[in-house]
Amino acid sequence: MNVTIVGIGLIGGSFAKDFKELYPDSKVTGVDKNESNANEALELGIIDQIKDYDSLATSDIVFVSIPVNALMLELPRILDAVGDGTLVMDAGSTKKLICKTVDGHPKRRNFLACHPIAGTEFSGPSAAINGLYAGKTNIICEVEKTAFKLQEKALEIFQKMKMRIRYMNPDAHDKHIAYVSHLSHISSFMLGKTVIEKEKNERDIFDMAGSGFESTVRLAKSSPDMWTPIFEQNRENVIETLEEYIQNLETFKKLLVDNDFENVYQEMNNTNRIKQILKGIPLTK
Amino acid sequence: MNVTIVGIGLIGGSFAKDFKELYPDSKVTGVDKNESNANEALELGIIDQIKDYDSLATSDIVFVSIPVNALMLELPRILDAVGDGTLVMDAGSTKKLICKTVDGHPKRRNFLACHPIAGTEFSGPSAAINGLYAGKTNIICEVEKTAFKLQEKALEIFQKMKMRIRYMNPDAHDKHIAYVSHLSHISSFMLGKTVIEKEKNERDIFDMAGSGFESTVRLAKSSPDMWTPIFEQNRENVIETLEEYIQNLETFKKLLVDNDFENVYQEMNNTNRIKQILKGIPLTK
Repeated sequence: MNVTIVGIGLIGGSFAKDFKELYPDSKVTGVDKNESNANEALELGIIDQIKDYDSLATSDIVFVSIPVNALMLELPRILDAVGDGTLVMDAGSTKKLICKTVDGHPKRRNFLACHPIAGTEFSGPSAAINGLYAGKTNIICEVEKTAFKLQEKALEIFQKMKMRIRYMNPDAHDKHIAYVSHLSHISSFMLGKTVIEKEKNERDIFDMAGSGFESTVRLAKSSPDMWTPIFEQNRENVIETLEEYIQNLETFKKLLVDNDFENVYQEMNNTNRIKQILKGIPLTK
Repeated sequence: MNVTIVGIGLIGGSFAKDFKELYPDSKVTGVDKNESNANEALELGIIDQIKDYDSLATSDIVFVSIPVNALMLELPRILDAVGDGTLVMDAGSTKKLICKTVDGHPKRRNFLACHPIAGTEFSGPSAAINGLYAGKTNIICEVEKTAFKLQEKALEIFQKMKMRIRYMNPDAHDKHIAYVSHLSHISSFMLGKTVIEKEKNERDIFDMAGSGFESTVRLAKSSPDMWTPIFEQNRENVIETLEEYIQNLETFKKLLVDNDFENVYQEMNNTNRIKQILKGIPLTK
């Protein structure tokens, strides 16, 4: 099988690594506008060759893992270039605008809109790891708009990579993902900002930070290149989550100001059930 | 050596485990007002016997690891009960009120005010682990108020447990710890609350949550019994950090509302240097 990865970073590179292991006879082609990224992936053995869109016509599978703003521009061009039997999948963290962009494209049935919920705070081909997708949820949108044979092909790969599949419409995806992913990133970035701003004398103060701080601020290491277009495309939902989050923080602050520690206790106690909820979440260790 | 652990949960239990390994001939006594906690610690072999404050007179070392509100009540009573040569250490997450409480106590020189920055989101004796303190920072306050020989005794233990020592006054401790620890807990609890409130249909939605969400919301599993009195004792500093955090979130939200994605990018890019800062933080894996 010929597979082409467009954008060979953490997500694309990890897909390529697993794919090669599952299909040892496959040929993995990398396309990346960032030449040093592509060369690094080649040196690391993640891809077998570097090509451009000309190679897409003979690809069986094209996996597109680029920032969501680039995705909107490139996806129609990629569909223009692929063969009639090529399966094109994306890995974008937003789905509404992406699906809208390719709606009505003559090769719409070659495309499967995906969001594999996997990743780390790192980026680039050197961050790619084997087994990133095992046990993770892959959200598929508008499955009915993809050719049945290509759905089957995709599901076989996802199953071999041990992903859990969930079907959802693009609006619902974007709304819910704002809560369980996008908001976490903003809370983390702003936590990092608050502490950095306050603590000018970093060396001394960050000595005091334990693993709790590290955990809550981990996502503040994430790439602004990736996240700015996500927030842009999911702007309305993200603003809504942020308003609710700020409101909850204001309420908690008021309890402190009012010396109402009975309700401070209750607020935390009620939220403790996140323990049970989180037990269902597969994690990258 | 006779060591007594008052409050045998995660913190006290982990101290006992390391202590026994470092001083195999020592006898570890547990004091806990929660009987089932004490019995569990005994069954797990974390302590050798269960006693009450009567045993403190013959203890060489007393390690007090109870919630900070209990600490204020119990610490004077513990000092009343100990022998002239006993070293008493606490592990409270606040230091100002604790130090004030024992200021002027006839046995003040037997007490060393400590805050070992270590822990996990779990609690109880079964959560105790060997090596919890290795590589962690232990903040010591008002060291000059402790008898020199007892300082020496404490430092020998901390060194053997591989802790890094930092000296700080109680006011500075409480102020800085509000930023690098207390605020993280509130941001995490309120993130958990926001998402739980919104997503009634948990099963389906939390399937979408990846390890990013798990990481930012991890501290929301923490014990309200431990954290309510911490927020109460460090109320003013915590309110200040919360105000700054909310302000930063408001600013970020305004950028989204104004479609100012150039500055959304800059906000994240500026905070990315948390990567370098965090490299210095020792973590529990």
